[in-house]
Amino acid sequence: MSESVEGLSTALTFVWLLLCGGLVFLMHAGFSLVEAGFTRAKNTANILMKNLMTICVGVLIYWLVGWGIMYGDDIAGILGFSQFCLSGADNSVWNGWFFQMVFAATGATIVSGAMAERTKFISYLVFTVLLVAIIYPVYGHWVWSGADLALLTGEGSAIVKMCGASFHDFAGSGVVHSIGGYAALAGVIILGPRIGKFKDGKPQAIPGHNITFGFLGVLLLWLGWLGFNGGSTLDGSDAYMNLAVVNTFLAAAAGAVAAMILTWLKTGKPDPSLTANGVLAGLVAITAPCGSVENWAAIVIGLIAGGIVYAGVMFNETVLKVDDPVGAIAVHGYCGTWGLLSVGIFAVGMGEGILGGAVYTAGAPGLLYGGVNQFIIQVVGALASIVWAFVAGFIVFKIIDVVIGLRASQKEEVEGLDITEHGIRAYPEYITE
Amino acid sequence: MSESVEGLSTALTFVWLLLCGGLVFLMHAGFSLVEAGFTRAKNTANILMKNLMTICVGVLIYWLVGWGIMYGDDIAGILGFSQFCLSGADNSVWNGWFFQMVFAATGATIVSGAMAERTKFISYLVFTVLLVAIIYPVYGHWVWSGADLALLTGEGSAIVKMCGASFHDFAGSGVVHSIGGYAALAGVIILGPRIGKFKDGKPQAIPGHNITFGFLGVLLLWLGWLGFNGGSTLDGSDAYMNLAVVNTFLAAAAGAVAAMILTWLKTGKPDPSLTANGVLAGLVAITAPCGSVENWAAIVIGLIAGGIVYAGVMFNETVLKVDDPVGAIAVHGYCGTWGLLSVGIFAVGMGEGILGGAVYTAGAPGLLYGGVNQFIIQVVGALASIVWAFVAGFIVFKIIDVVIGLRASQKEEVEGLDITEHGIRAYPEYITE
Amino acid sequence: MSESVEGLSTALTFVWLLLCGGLVFLMHAGFSLVEAGFTRAKNTANILMKNLMTICVGVLIYWLVGWGIMYGDDIAGILGFSQFCLSGADNSVWNGWFFQMVFAATGATIVSGAMAERTKFISYLVFTVLLVAIIYPVYGHWVWSGADLALLTGEGSAIVKMCGASFHDFAGSGVVHSIGGYAALAGVIILGPRIGKFKDGKPQAIPGHNITFGFLGVLLLWLGWLGFNGGSTLDGSDAYMNLAVVNTFLAAAAGAVAAMILTWLKTGKPDPSLTANGVLAGLVAITAPCGSVENWAAIVIGLIAGGIVYAGVMFNETVLKVDDPVGAIAVHGYCGTWGLLSVGIFAVGMGEGILGGAVYTAGAPGLLYGGVNQFIIQVVGALASIVWAFVAGFIVFKIIDVVIGLRASQKEEVEGLDITEHGIRAYPEYITE
Repeated sequence: MSESVEGLSTALTFVWLLLCGGLVFLMHAGFSLVEAGFTRAKNTANILMKNLMTICVGVLIYWLVGWGIMYGDDIAGILGFSQFCLSGADNSVWNGWFFQMVFAATGATIVSGAMAERTKFISYLVFTVLLVAIIYPVYGHWVWSGADLALLTGEGSAIVKMCGASFHDFAGSGVVHSIGGYAALAGVIILGPRIGKFKDGKPQAIPGHNITFGFLGVLLLWLGWLGFNGGSTLDGSDAYMNLAVVNTFLAAAAGAVAAMILTWLKTGKPDPSLTANGVLAGLVAITAPCGSVENWAAIVIGLIAGGIVYAGVMFNETVLKVDDPVGAIAVHGYCGTWGLLSVGIFAVGMGEGILGGAVYTAGAPGLLYGGVNQFIIQVVGALASIVWAFVAGFIVFKIIDVVIGLRASQKEEVEGLDITEHGIRAYPEYITE
Repeated sequence: MSESVEGLSTALTFVWLLLCGGLVFLMHAGFSLVEAGFTRAKNTANILMKNLMTICVGVLIYWLVGWGIMYGDDIAGILGFSQFCLSGADNSVWNGWFFQMVFAATGATIVSGAMAERTKFISYLVFTVLLVAIIYPVYGHWVWSGADLALLTGEGSAIVKMCGASFHDFAGSGVVHSIGGYAALAGVIILGPRIGKFKDGKPQAIPGHNITFGFLGVLLLWLGWLGFNGGSTLDGSDAYMNLAVVNTFLAAAAGAVAAMILTWLKTGKPDPSLTANGVLAGLVAITAPCGSVENWAAIVIGLIAGGIVYAGVMFNETVLKVDDPVGAIAVHGYCGTWGLLSVGIFAVGMGEGILGGAVYTAGAPGLLYGGVNQFIIQVVGALASIVWAFVAGFIVFKIIDVVIGLRASQKEEVEGLDITEHGIRAYPEYITE
Repeated sequence: MSESVEGLSTALTFVWLLLCGGLVFLMHAGFSLVEAGFTRAKNTANILMKNLMTICVGVLIYWLVGWGIMYGDDIAGILGFSQFCLSGADNSVWNGWFFQMVFAATGATIVSGAMAERTKFISYLVFTVLLVAIIYPVYGHWVWSGADLALLTGEGSAIVKMCGASFHDFAGSGVVHSIGGYAALAGVIILGPRIGKFKDGKPQAIPGHNITFGFLGVLLLWLGWLGFNGGSTLDGSDAYMNLAVVNTFLAAAAGAVAAMILTWLKTGKPDPSLTANGVLAGLVAITAPCGSVENWAAIVIGLIAGGIVYAGVMFNETVLKVDDPVGAIAVHGYCGTWGLLSVGIFAVGMGEGILGGAVYTAGAPGLLYGGVNQFIIQVVGALASIVWAFVAGFIVFKIIDVVIGLRASQKEEVEGLDITEHGIRAYPEYITE
């Protein structure tokens, strides 16, 4: 009897993670729509192809290599190295692989958005292979592998010992979003801005061709985050999935409200694109702390994320002078960092208060609850993700640039990548300006 | 052991309600697309912003106030008053709050559609805050709070005693749809029709700009209703979720077929917009009775709803002379009322026939099964929702109108709210007529 | 206690199948978008109406007749005949009906795509009624009814005895896709190509009007397949749902990669439409074998499917000279057949290797594992689906053609079916070429 109860508990986890994985998969539809909607019609088919191939390549490469590097037998806490091609898998491994796989492809999709409208298709594909095979799973190994020596979370890790706490990134503000965001930053620096983005050093608005697609994409992403954060309990019987989901929705809403009010105050009108990015900012930020903080803290984290995305977009355009058509670096990079740090500030601490019974939450309390160690390790982990993603991304993009070229020709860019890369137009019947 | 079985049963309910809540959340994408698709391109970004902010405001205000008014400690059966900011919440409360929250925002979204293309953005936001904070949860308290004195359902309520039966609104034909629909009616009366809607008193067709968005929206709404009605058992182990879902799909299909045939007979061609609204009509109507009636009755209820939405749209345009761009008042208001009444006609009665083992269904049989009391209380509850929503909505809109103005200026309306309210165009590259 | 554990296990199955059924329902949104996106703007409302009414008619007719023919009391292994109108249904039947119903409507939708842009609306509706009432459930009875004499799977069936193995079609490469695909082939042969499709016998490209809709549709279909294949264990506690889902995703990805590379090699550019169809090709093919093969085999099956869809589209256009605007015959017909055959090649065999504990998988090993019987019955079953769907489809379409006419007039086709059949334009504000 006790066996059948346990079997049922496992079955519930399988059902929960397959369905949550499905919701995360839906995020790829969300990213496709956001990236297509907020860019120009002449590059739409190219963007859609990049997003679709991101998943396809993601599925195959994460099966072939990525999972083995992330969850295979640990080598000195740096990476895993076994289980390639899911050798020896059973239903439990397949379940885990599926949920992790839909996450893995997300990192590359983030990069796709930032580098939209001017990157060669083949070069993007090569990068995606390397991100899913190496860049993503290596950092993932440091955080989520459960290995005793895992750099940022293992009990036997020197870093963890030094900081006196284990790094906590519940569903991947760092593993997924920060890695994607800072790799994208490396990419856009090497790539340079789109033709016409800067005039005499001043950023010019290049409006997206279909706001409805953009907003639908944001709503699908939001829904997908239910699976992203809710499923990250990795246990269908862990009641704290409810806290994680509620915090997720509170932060998303707060991020949007903050971004809307900021643009309203600054320009006199509430701006749709930035408000939509405010939702994503809140979602990215709450991804790490959603299982560790109180409701009010989730709202504060979201509000601040809404401010960060606004300031980050301005900073990128006016200070760094980089061109990120959809704001992906601000959303996923900067808000990802904020999410990681926020754990060290707002975490209640395991076994404390509302988290009395939680088994998967930040171990130590944050600054606001009198702890320092959790904050320190969060800073270390956040820096590690920035450095690793930016450096690895930079090297990979540089090599691609030298070997096959990263950027489309000026002629191709002006004509649009749909015709030049794929020989079709996304909307052949419409007359456009 | 018995404890772990009970724990697993609770876990299944958590999983079920989180996922059903996710599906209901998807309805906001559905509403966004329906409202955008069936209106003009120049107001699209405004509609999308209104729908997005409806959820964002809904999440925050229902957390802050709405839940406390609806489910807090009862005050004389009229409203609840505690648990603001979800104080003292545990995982069970978070789970319940999440499922209820996605419902709460829906009421405002309905209003958004009816008042599209001419309402000031700020005024809509203020109304949404008040609907989610007060209008929705007060009526919700009367019906779903479980309080002993709850006006329409409590055992101790004088109304319930007088009628001899408890009001039954399974998933919210009244709480959600009727409330939204009749508040919208108050709004459009105060607001007046769009410029050009009536010429010499005769209604003019103002076609929507993108039927594909409209139809995609309807399909997403239909899917969302699986969560809306299926989840309303509030119990992952209640087998009657199957009856609820099957009845839901039967009624939706019947509503569409009826509306299609009616338009075919009347105009010689099957009309896409009205057929799509026929789906929604069937869904709204079956929302109250889906757990209380037989399959054939669900089909009849849907067929009649398809007729009501057709007649209702005509009635609004030619008799009331009100302008409801997406037919929201007919769909949610009139069919919501029909759904509530249909319980009193077709309900099998608890413990009878196919509902032998149901614990959550209309308590007494309907007119067709020889009962009268259930019908009487359904009439009372339906009237209560009409009066409450219309009067409260009227007062709120009047105050907003006087204080900050409800309607955009003529110049703004002609130019389109996208440019005037948000400074952008939804489709800047396309040349439109 | 043992009772409550069993009750919980049933409840988990109910939850799983309702949600998987919801995902399959979402496929109708996917089909709507694929068919609309890959055809011309002037026929969009018509396509959307056809797809919407397919579900509506599907729901009602499968309730009225289809389920009874498929799962009613067996008559000589040919068809069932009872349970019409779900008479005597309980929650278990409603659950099963819901999951099967969403499948049933899919067959007709496939036909809708192949016959797009030139078929009379009323004629399509009549065909849909007959497909859901008879064509689909009869073949379904042979395969999935569980009847002892069921032609292709029953222990007492002469065919099964002769072949020495039972036909295995896990989730419907044959029952759903092959049936839809070959009925569509019959339809397009009778119907003839669209005006302008062939010039001097050479096929002309008629580009779709909105690639974004097409790609969004493909992603929604992919997600839907999680429910389609995952749910087909029909048991929420069957751990092999994980293998089924993983194989599904591997095959889909492989199909897209193969199709992309093929078009890249052939034309110098990776083609978006065919790559998107490559996803669907992989999904259709893996539908039968997903619970019977190893991961690497799923990839091989997908890769070959990607090749088949490319070759199939070319074959249809240049050899058969039939016009299938969205490639539905190649995707669902040819890849459906391939999926059925692949079971006979790659199946591990029940109780063998990774399938040690599986209760629902191909009974005998495939050719690669030294078996022959499974391959033989798969050939027989595949042929049966081709012959039955083509012949039944041909007869039905011929009768419809004679009685009410199958094809729109030349004038209607040129003007577009939106105006002539429904009196509206899908995008009235846009100026198109």
